[in-house]
Amino acid sequence: MLPLLADRFNTLRYEEGTVVLLDRRVYPFRREYVRCRTVEEVAQAIEHMVVQGGPPLAYAAGLGLVLAAEEVAEKPVAQQREHLRAAAQRLLRTRPTADDLFQVVPTALAVGEAALHRGEPAARAILDYVNQEIERGNRVAEACGRHAADLIRDGERILTHCIPGAALCWMLYVATQEQGKHVELWPTETRPYLQGARLTAACGQEAGVPVTLLTDGMVAHAMSEGHITVYITAADRIALDGHVANKVGTLQNALVAHHFGIPYYVLGYDGPDPNTRTGQDITIETRAPEEVFHCRGAEGTVRVAVPGIKAYYPAFDITPPHLIEAIVTDKGVYPPRLIARYLEERKK
Amino acid sequence: MLPLLADRFNTLRYEEGTVVLLDRRVYPFRREYVRCRTVEEVAQAIEHMVVQGGPPLAYAAGLGLVLAAEEVAEKPVAQQREHLRAAAQRLLRTRPTADDLFQVVPTALAVGEAALHRGEPAARAILDYVNQEIERGNRVAEACGRHAADLIRDGERILTHCIPGAALCWMLYVATQEQGKHVELWPTETRPYLQGARLTAACGQEAGVPVTLLTDGMVAHAMSEGHITVYITAADRIALDGHVANKVGTLQNALVAHHFGIPYYVLGYDGPDPNTRTGQDITIETRAPEEVFHCRGAEGTVRVAVPGIKAYYPAFDITPPHLIEAIVTDKGVYPPRLIARYLEERKK
Repeated sequence: MLPLLADRFNTLRYEEGTVVLLDRRVYPFRREYVRCRTVEEVAQAIEHMVVQGGPPLAYAAGLGLVLAAEEVAEKPVAQQREHLRAAAQRLLRTRPTADDLFQVVPTALAVGEAALHRGEPAARAILDYVNQEIERGNRVAEACGRHAADLIRDGERILTHCIPGAALCWMLYVATQEQGKHVELWPTETRPYLQGARLTAACGQEAGVPVTLLTDGMVAHAMSEGHITVYITAADRIALDGHVANKVGTLQNALVAHHFGIPYYVLGYDGPDPNTRTGQDITIETRAPEEVFHCRGAEGTVRVAVPGIKAYYPAFDITPPHLIEAIVTDKGVYPPRLIARYLEERKK
Repeated sequence: MLPLLADRFNTLRYEEGTVVLLDRRVYPFRREYVRCRTVEEVAQAIEHMVVQGGPPLAYAAGLGLVLAAEEVAEKPVAQQREHLRAAAQRLLRTRPTADDLFQVVPTALAVGEAALHRGEPAARAILDYVNQEIERGNRVAEACGRHAADLIRDGERILTHCIPGAALCWMLYVATQEQGKHVELWPTETRPYLQGARLTAACGQEAGVPVTLLTDGMVAHAMSEGHITVYITAADRIALDGHVANKVGTLQNALVAHHFGIPYYVLGYDGPDPNTRTGQDITIETRAPEEVFHCRGAEGTVRVAVPGIKAYYPAFDITPPHLIEAIVTDKGVYPPRLIARYLEERKK
């Protein structure tokens, strides 16, 4: 079966003045949806990880801008424009690392302003744009997953980190259901949010793939014992020089994979960010220490650390191109240092 | 202040027919002691991580043999001997990786049998031996910690993994209180048991050292940002060829430290196991997947993984000598491949 997360409309959508978001903090323990009625509620849902992953959080932000437009639909156009711009600024401040947010929100704003200029309702125009963008993103994820499935050999034991999203779902589905390969998924649990133990493990289960969970410290040992044959993650942002930002822990897994001669493939969706020249141009989000001090499980949240200490919580890290075998996109497979060619391909 | 864990008598002792063990699964959230009245209760306390760390669990097992001797003190000598041997076998089956258990329990058994041979009570003789062994272990930890303190430079930011035990306590105490150096402790939380977030963090706090917690996936990023200057762990077993077994995760941290040019020192206490020639001779304990599926916090235990999947839980991994700068023992500092010289030094 194609996992739930393969189609973003299963996890986020606009419904009559409300943005409905699958609460990824408790899924798959519970299938609960958070209903946001204001742009501020959407912004906080993104900040609090109700929705996460570069494309999904960007789509949620885009739908948040629909709410902003509705809030002032009866006001003079100048006031609507001002409100939309402020709302876009608020949404852009939610999370700094993934580039999708910085493409979807400014475009949604421009679409809204253009509608106002034409004397049409901004909300309708923005919603149409965001829904088209989600549809496009779904197609990108499927195409990326299909190219990745072609790289997966029969018998592959795949290490993942965090949740590589819809493209991973498609990769597993195509490799096993269409191509008849046997593969295993070995997710790291991915502390502190445990995306691997919950979301990625559930995607593997739904795709009918055997899942073996690791804590984040077991990667090198599992590789030294021969349990892993390939390492695959998504990317929150890809620089034009082939550096890749992804969930913190990605870098050390890549270093360890390189040591053991295990290839690392990045599911790159729709390629590099044209505005990010090098890895150094990527802002790494630092999140609240409280999240490291706690662990959220099916029954609630428990404190895991002694009180009175500090914690460091960089949410992402950056992996250099020499540790990456290839970046897989919707347009095919690229050596990491040649990823800028994707943009030329797209122009055609 | 010298941390609580610096003196093993603070955490385990014999008291009138009972072995009293600090429950390390909840410390420092609560200072609770588990009271074991039978050898089977001691064995299960070791298996369930009430007590952990190579020397402490070996001492607990030795005290368990005291209980075994008391259980049959009124029986014929042959029956006492048989019961003691069976109890020793039970205790030796608790955990396979750390070598201390395999030194303390057979010696305690021999001491007990010798006492029986002389017509003396086995329990008294075993208790005297184990208490002497704990005192010796405390002296070893202090001497090892003092040698390690000499390696620590002013301003050092120390990454640790799991709980390097009494020698770490002494190292921090001597480096800061006696030598006036400023150091910081950066423990990994060390899933699944979170020894770093609880035990090691508490040791740092009690020693008056600033503590900054990392999840297990943040090591490479923290190093890439310059937050770490040295990596220090204990060892559950050291082979004569310089391979070191320690808590799973130690290996990948060592690989990453090597990549970033950061030295890795092993607190080797009383040196290598004379009966372990190479790293391949070390048995890596595999523990129950249930422990990976759950997280124990101050308020109780929560499930963190989706039901219906598998998990892999190797409790230790093995780090090769080329990733280790030096092994620090009670008798001084050794290059890892020359660690067998420790045994010659001890003979003198």
